[in-house]
Formats: sequence, structure tokens, C-alpha cells
Amino acid sequence: MLRGTGTAVSGEMRNTMKTRADDHVMLVHGGGGEMTRRFLDAHVLPGLANEFLDPLLDSAVLPPVEGSLCMTTDAFVVQPLEFPGGDIGRLAVCGTINDLAVMGARPLALSLALVMEEGLPLAVLDRVMASIAGAAGEAGTPVVTGDTKVVERNRGDGLLITTAGLGVLDEGPRLAPGRIEAGDEILVTGPIAEHGLAVMVAREGLGITSRLESDAAPLAGLVEAMVSSGGEVKFLRDPTRGGVAGVVADLVEDTGLGVEIEEEALPVPAPVRHAAELLGLDPLTVANEGKIVVVAAKGAGERVLEACHAHPRGKGAVRIGRMVRAEPPLAELITSIGGRRIIQRPYGEELPRIC
Amino acid sequence: MLRGTGTAVSGEMRNTMKTRADDHVMLVHGGGGEMTRRFLDAHVLPGLANEFLDPLLDSAVLPPVEGSLCMTTDAFVVQPLEFPGGDIGRLAVCGTINDLAVMGARPLALSLALVMEEGLPLAVLDRVMASIAGAAGEAGTPVVTGDTKVVERNRGDGLLITTAGLGVLDEGPRLAPGRIEAGDEILVTGPIAEHGLAVMVAREGLGITSRLESDAAPLAGLVEAMVSSGGEVKFLRDPTRGGVAGVVADLVEDTGLGVEIEEEALPVPAPVRHAAELLGLDPLTVANEGKIVVVAAKGAGERVLEACHAHPRGKGAVRIGRMVRAEPPLAELITSIGGRRIIQRPYGEELPRIC
Repeated sequence: MLRGTGTAVSGEMRNTMKTRADDHVMLVHGGGGEMTRRFLDAHVLPGLANEFLDPLLDSAVLPPVEGSLCMTTDAFVVQPLEFPGGDIGRLAVCGTINDLAVMGARPLALSLALVMEEGLPLAVLDRVMASIAGAAGEAGTPVVTGDTKVVERNRGDGLLITTAGLGVLDEGPRLAPGRIEAGDEILVTGPIAEHGLAVMVAREGLGITSRLESDAAPLAGLVEAMVSSGGEVKFLRDPTRGGVAGVVADLVEDTGLGVEIEEEALPVPAPVRHAAELLGLDPLTVANEGKIVVVAAKGAGERVLEACHAHPRGKGAVRIGRMVRAEPPLAELITSIGGRRIIQRPYGEELPRIC
Repeated sequence: MLRGTGTAVSGEMRNTMKTRADDHVMLVHGGGGEMTRRFLDAHVLPGLANEFLDPLLDSAVLPPVEGSLCMTTDAFVVQPLEFPGGDIGRLAVCGTINDLAVMGARPLALSLALVMEEGLPLAVLDRVMASIAGAAGEAGTPVVTGDTKVVERNRGDGLLITTAGLGVLDEGPRLAPGRIEAGDEILVTGPIAEHGLAVMVAREGLGITSRLESDAAPLAGLVEAMVSSGGEVKFLRDPTRGGVAGVVADLVEDTGLGVEIEEEALPVPAPVRHAAELLGLDPLTVANEGKIVVVAAKGAGERVLEACHAHPRGKGAVRIGRMVRAEPPLAELITSIGGRRIIQRPYGEELPRIC
């Protein structure tokens, strides 16, 4: 049973209000005074230590770099805060690193801003912080600066995390939709829709016995493997909110070309399909956090796939479709019996607070 | 009367729930789909346009820079969202720019993450976004990347903003507490405690007829003027949460020296003093958003003050004290009759949600 595996802070947290004061976050922890310092030392800083963060100055000072800089940010409002395969902390680190990675940038540093609701159990915060430290370590990208604030009970939702990321682009052709041509191959680096469905199943407390887990993972290493595979990679995008459908809709809009996706080629594991059916969702529109949609030059897909298969985060990579000339340009799903269905960017309300 | 000048979203917002659906933020605006695109085009992007933001890629691509990089982040949870002299948007831009500026860094770029509560009036959002655009324009620092999320009604508090900032440090001696010696002069660039008290007066709806306004302002230009004044500047810090008291407490801790502040020299305007007395607050511990505490080398204060006085943001700059040898090292306030009072870092709960 997955019920209860997620930490649904909105409900469960409020039941912890009777616990001792030193068990949960208090308003005074966010006041910027002596209590904030002690709180940071006890609960936020221990796992993050690095030479850039440790001075705790107004800004972190990082060494000079050569090459263009990349900057990105994401706010994470996922509920529940903890779910099979990850938590809001792992998500925040991976999401921001991946937004740099899909630009072809080498992630250099992360910032981390926490907005905590008064009453957040310190045990939850400690687990999330350990998860942040773990994911940053796995990616080799340090958290160099941060901020913490506390809002009153019932004015927040447990914990919100906003990360920003700084990366550097080495010289070479940029990954951008402008280079995409008809005939280019569309790949995905593994099974889709796992993250969004793992979160939804945990949130809804569905009685599904399954191994459905979020795929949240830092992907800069996988990108590096693809880009240096010898097969020409033209464009990368992590299909988070909006899913694969959102990415292919953007591809059509940005290139003026059509997209054909082979339904039979889509990697949708049985537990994903089962959960999607239960929830009435199309796996194409469900968020992923550890996968990349790739556009490779015509004929280059095989080498890129080989590079993926040799990397721990790309073992399930497959070709799912191609760019085509089409008038009007549309994204279409080619069904197993040869039918065609238009793939649209989801309207937006199917999966609230999934990241 | 200041009552009602602040937009106290927690209360007032919920009264707007009866307005038409297109008057306020809806959950679907944060789903990452078609509605999110339209929402961004209508309410978030118009004032921010610049060459780095406009491609709306996963990360903004910025040109290479020479010199060490600075990175900082702040989460803003101020209530009310709008208050005399500013709003959460101006605060978010200025706060992050100033955290770069006080390191001696030249701000290059900002990221902007919005977490909106369902039901936030679009009119409020539009005003805050205009304010963000205005402050970024005033500072000459573009918003290059961003994110928007929406949480359900009663799960947030109107609007939270997290900004991160990227800056570059030119070569030269770093501004750091390590260079501070006994005899060094302590300056402040203008009247203190205005921001915190303006917000508190607006929040509490106190019936004070006054011109008390937040001092939120971007200060990179003022820092540049001080650093190039010819007077040696050793350390800068913007006294936000924790106020001037927090900064001098940090100075003592970081240098092992004592601090003496002359009570009579502290620039506390009459409306500030009046509001502080009403609220039972010590202006030394109240947040500022447009002021800097400066440590200048002994004998260099006058030149730094002259540079301040010639800058629109430093007209009220004064010398307030000095670093001294003291055992044990303490920060002390020297009162007008020669008495001494220890200045402590505030405990933390006096001024919740002031930034």
C-alpha cells in the first residue's frame, strides 16, 4: 500500500502541533536573529558544507570561469513533500541542475531558498535537507548560498523550495531548436511519466501496490555522455510540467515543422500505465524529473542511444519519433494500428503541484 | 491614516474571491500548460523583456565575464505585499542586488520565482510586476530567467517571491571582515529602520499620520561611488533582518574586536522614532532595505561620506561609531550621557515577515 508513504504536510503536519516546541519550525527561526543562526547551524547547514557556502556572506564568491554563463531558477511546491523515489529537496536540486544540463551547460553552483510554515516537523526538514545534500553530492554541484524564511501556520504549505542554478557553456554549437530539420530523430532517455504519477498516487493515497517511484535524478552526466557520443545532438529538454506532450508542442511551435511520435515506441511501464488509467491521465502529459527528450540529427540517433545505454541514467533510452515536414505543422501520435491523434500541450490543470 | 495603504492579501484577498474568474490567479495558471503560457504573456513577461529572458529557454544564456562570480538568493515573504514606499517586488529586486553590491560585486542578472496563491488579484500581481520591472530598470540589472507556480487557496499567502542574483567581482582587495582593525570607522548611508517600521505600521493598520516609507532601493551605484572615493572601504553590509544591531553583532563575532556606536550619531528620523516607540521596537534592530553599514579605514571615513553625499542614495550618510580593542569584545551603544548598553543580535521574533 502506498497510502501514507507521502508526507502530506497539509494534513499530517497540523497534527504534530501538540508536540514539543523544539520538534518543529517556529516563526522565530525565520527572524534573522540569534535563533535563525542556531537553527541554520543545527538543521540547514550541516550536510551542505563547502568552501563557497561556509563563509555565510551576503553572496557566495566563486572562481572565474571561461565561457558563456547559464542561469536558471525553479520554485518547488510539490505535495506531498515526500513521495516514493524522492522528496521536494531532491526534486529542487535535480530540477535546476537539469535545466542547466539540457542547455549543454556544466552546472557550477546552486542557490537554495526555503520558505517553511510554522509547525513543519524538524524531522521532515532534516530528511529533506539530507536529500538536498545527497542530490547535490551525486551531481557534484554545491549549494553555495541560501536563505530561510518562516511564515505563520496556515499561511504556507509546509515547505516551499526555490533553487537557482549557475552553469557554464563551453564553446561549440549551441543546443537550440533553430538547428532542427525534417528527418531529425526524437529520442527519450527512459520510461516516461514516473515522477508525476508517483506523486499523484502518494497524494491521493491510492491503494495501489506497485513499485511506482519518482525518477528524479541529476542528468548533467548523461547529457555529457550524449553530447560527446559522436552523434549530433541538436536539442535537449527535460519533460517536466507538461510532460513529453508539452515538449513536442514546443518543438512544433519553435521549428515550424511537424512531429510524429510512434505510440508503440513510447516507454510506458506497466505500473505507469495502470496508475495513469486509474487517475484518468495521459502519460504523455505527465511530468518527468529524470528523463530528457532529445532531438538528434537524422542518422545520429543510434550513436546517441548507445551512449545513453552505457550510462546508468540512460539505460532505457529509445527512439520515439521524428521531425517531419507538415502543413499545418502539428505534433501527432501514430497509433499502433496506424491512426493519428494530435498531441496538444496540456491545458494545465491535470496535475497541480507536481513539482 | 496609513490604515489600508498596505495590501494585506491574507485578509483582503480572500474577499475578492467573489470576483470574476479572470480577475485573479487560478491553479491552472501554474500547471505548466497552455494556460501558463498565456498567463505569462499577459501578466509576467510584458515589463521584463530583454534579450536574455525573451527566448524562454530552460536557462538564460549570458555572455562570458572576467573576474570572480558572486551568487546570492533571498526569499521574500513580506506582509502586506504592498506598503508605503514599495512592495514585495521592489523588495525582491533590491534585496538581491544589494546582497551582491555589498560584496563589491557588479550585479549582472537576476532570476525571479513567483509562488502565487490561487485567488491573488491580478491587479495586485500586475502592480508588483511593474514594480519589479521598475526596480530592475533602475538598477540596470535584467531579470533573465524565472518560474511561476500556483498553490491552492489557503495553502499560501498571496505571493511569495524568490530572487537569485549573479554578479562579477573585479580584481582588487575583497570587502571582508578580515581586514578590519581597531580604529576603523563605522558609517551608515542614511536614516535607519524605515523599511521595517513602514511595513509594520501598514500591517498593523496603526492610525499614524506620517510620511514613514520603506527605503527599499538598489544600491550598487552607491557602493561603486564609495569604493572609488579614494577612502579605503573594508566592509559593507546591508542591515536588513536583524537591523544595524545584527550587523554590529556579526562584526564583533567575525573580527574579535569591539564596536562602539554613538547613540547621538544614529540617524533616526522623528517618524521612525515615534513608530518604534508605539510598537515597542528598538530602531537598531529594525530592518532596512536601502541602507548600508560601512567599515572604512581609520581616517578614511570623511572621503567615503563625501562620496555618499554626492550620490542620491547616500545623502543622509553619517559616521556612527568605530571598531575598538575590547576584552571581552562587545558591541556597545554609548548613550548621550556617556552610559553604555550592550547591543545584541535580536533574538528573532520581533519583526516577522518584514522582507
